[in-house]
Amino acid sequence: MAKGTILLSVTGFDPATWCAELEKAAPDRKVVTEPAGANDPDIEYAVVWKQRRGVLNGLPNLKAIFSIGAGVDHIFAEDELPDVPIVRAIADDLTERMSEYVAWQVLDHHRKGPLYREQQARRLWHEDIMQPAARDVTVGILGYGTLGRDAGRKLRTLGFEVVGWSRREKTGEKIDVFTGDNGLNQFLAVADIVVCLLPLTPATRGILSARLFDRMKRRGPLGAPILINAGRGGLQKEADIIAALEDGRLGAVSLDVFETEPLPEDSRLWNHPRVTITPHAAATSMPHALVPPMIEQMEAHDRGEPLRNVVDREAGY
Amino acid sequence: MAKGTILLSVTGFDPATWCAELEKAAPDRKVVTEPAGANDPDIEYAVVWKQRRGVLNGLPNLKAIFSIGAGVDHIFAEDELPDVPIVRAIADDLTERMSEYVAWQVLDHHRKGPLYREQQARRLWHEDIMQPAARDVTVGILGYGTLGRDAGRKLRTLGFEVVGWSRREKTGEKIDVFTGDNGLNQFLAVADIVVCLLPLTPATRGILSARLFDRMKRRGPLGAPILINAGRGGLQKEADIIAALEDGRLGAVSLDVFETEPLPEDSRLWNHPRVTITPHAAATSMPHALVPPMIEQMEAHDRGEPLRNVVDREAGY
Repeated sequence: MAKGTILLSVTGFDPATWCAELEKAAPDRKVVTEPAGANDPDIEYAVVWKQRRGVLNGLPNLKAIFSIGAGVDHIFAEDELPDVPIVRAIADDLTERMSEYVAWQVLDHHRKGPLYREQQARRLWHEDIMQPAARDVTVGILGYGTLGRDAGRKLRTLGFEVVGWSRREKTGEKIDVFTGDNGLNQFLAVADIVVCLLPLTPATRGILSARLFDRMKRRGPLGAPILINAGRGGLQKEADIIAALEDGRLGAVSLDVFETEPLPEDSRLWNHPRVTITPHAAATSMPHALVPPMIEQMEAHDRGEPLRNVVDREAGY
Repeated sequence: MAKGTILLSVTGFDPATWCAELEKAAPDRKVVTEPAGANDPDIEYAVVWKQRRGVLNGLPNLKAIFSIGAGVDHIFAEDELPDVPIVRAIADDLTERMSEYVAWQVLDHHRKGPLYREQQARRLWHEDIMQPAARDVTVGILGYGTLGRDAGRKLRTLGFEVVGWSRREKTGEKIDVFTGDNGLNQFLAVADIVVCLLPLTPATRGILSARLFDRMKRRGPLGAPILINAGRGGLQKEADIIAALEDGRLGAVSLDVFETEPLPEDSRLWNHPRVTITPHAAATSMPHALVPPMIEQMEAHDRGEPLRNVVDREAGY
């Protein structure tokens, strides 16, 4: 019996590399980018990133949906979804790239990158002797799952104090991981740098807003707290970020994600002196790293084994 | 019997904090910033950073010289030095700060900091999809002593491949550490990013010059090789660095140290688009971290115990 067809549906980038990688990793499966028709019975697995709306419905033999990327909010943007497991991308490559980004931006703020670049532009030789050591700085990671744990471990190796905050209670962690709204207060009371790696769900949408900035510490060894968001743009309210930068509640921010992407040319964020912008490049899903584990999961599922990294549809992540 | 006096002799910065820290850590010793006169018999220990020329001579009871900072080239700049042990500063605080700087600059180049900042200035949203993973990038550490080993360990935690090069042969290391001029060729053949933490000695002066750049690899996953110098300015030939940047032998450089410090306002390095400048701020010697171990060493020496971290005068470091 022929193996089930894979539907690849992405928007926002050219699917050619993904298609080629899927064909290479699953030479015994057909890979299509559109269903042959309504009720296409051959499609058993879908691999998606911001799939074309409605494409997942009307596939009678669909067994599972695989997300390209750690987040699955782009899948839930659909009004209606077939009742099959949704699998998030978890791969060392993706995790490690995110930790690179986090360590990079934490160090850039900690070591006064913006200050020294501004001084260089003015040919000014002046050492900031108020440089704290990493051990004097606490990094708080909002969203302490697979990505947060790896970033936290690496930040601790670099010498930083690390705390976490997570929706689900975590036990057996090497650091303090707070939970709930009370826990968020405790977390914000100690975090000098807040790194946001939360999933975007109805519960987290807009969490990076005035209500949170108001509860942050006033001053730490680096001055006002610093915010780094590498989660999703929908987690942040950009007008609130700009207001908090201007009245000093936030010292500086690094944003990899935005309410609207690409970031509109007229956004005030682009040329704000205390805003670092990257174009949703923190942790790119590389097909050579992500496709093989996806195919392995399909094969395992065909043999009747359980899928791993299945999304909790209730929680939305 | 009163304990020996400490002579503190520094130029280039205000000694007040160091003086206060020494007095706090050794309340039973006198601390002076100038000898009471020629042949001052009370001075037993000297704590120095670019000491006033000649101040170390004519002290009949001098027992040891302590360097403020990991490097001791500033002490050897003297024409004549008393025949007492010279102790370099080795302290976790100093080592950790250097590793922060190294990780920061390695990540900034690896993650295309200069590119993304330039794009931000132009309000340009464009992801560089040629981003290699850390594991695809080899960082070569020139000078694999206490500082190099700590930086290397942290870079490996971040995922980078790491190799070292050292004057003295090293055994039992977790990475390849090359030695000698042949070893330097092997090292340069694999290093995508070269981090220089060498001491400045007659053997290393000017080592970062055309002769070395010519032997580097042509292209790696980040393009042409990247140079980071946090050792001493005397290790580099700035005219050669600029020439190598311009003809593409070097892709970019981060310099914390310079042939002349402060870097002269008319240096072409200041506004070169592929040069990152920090004002000798990579690893500042903090008195609160360095003074206590110095005093402990003085006490131990007074009890007849051997000094640690003594400089090999022959090798000059």
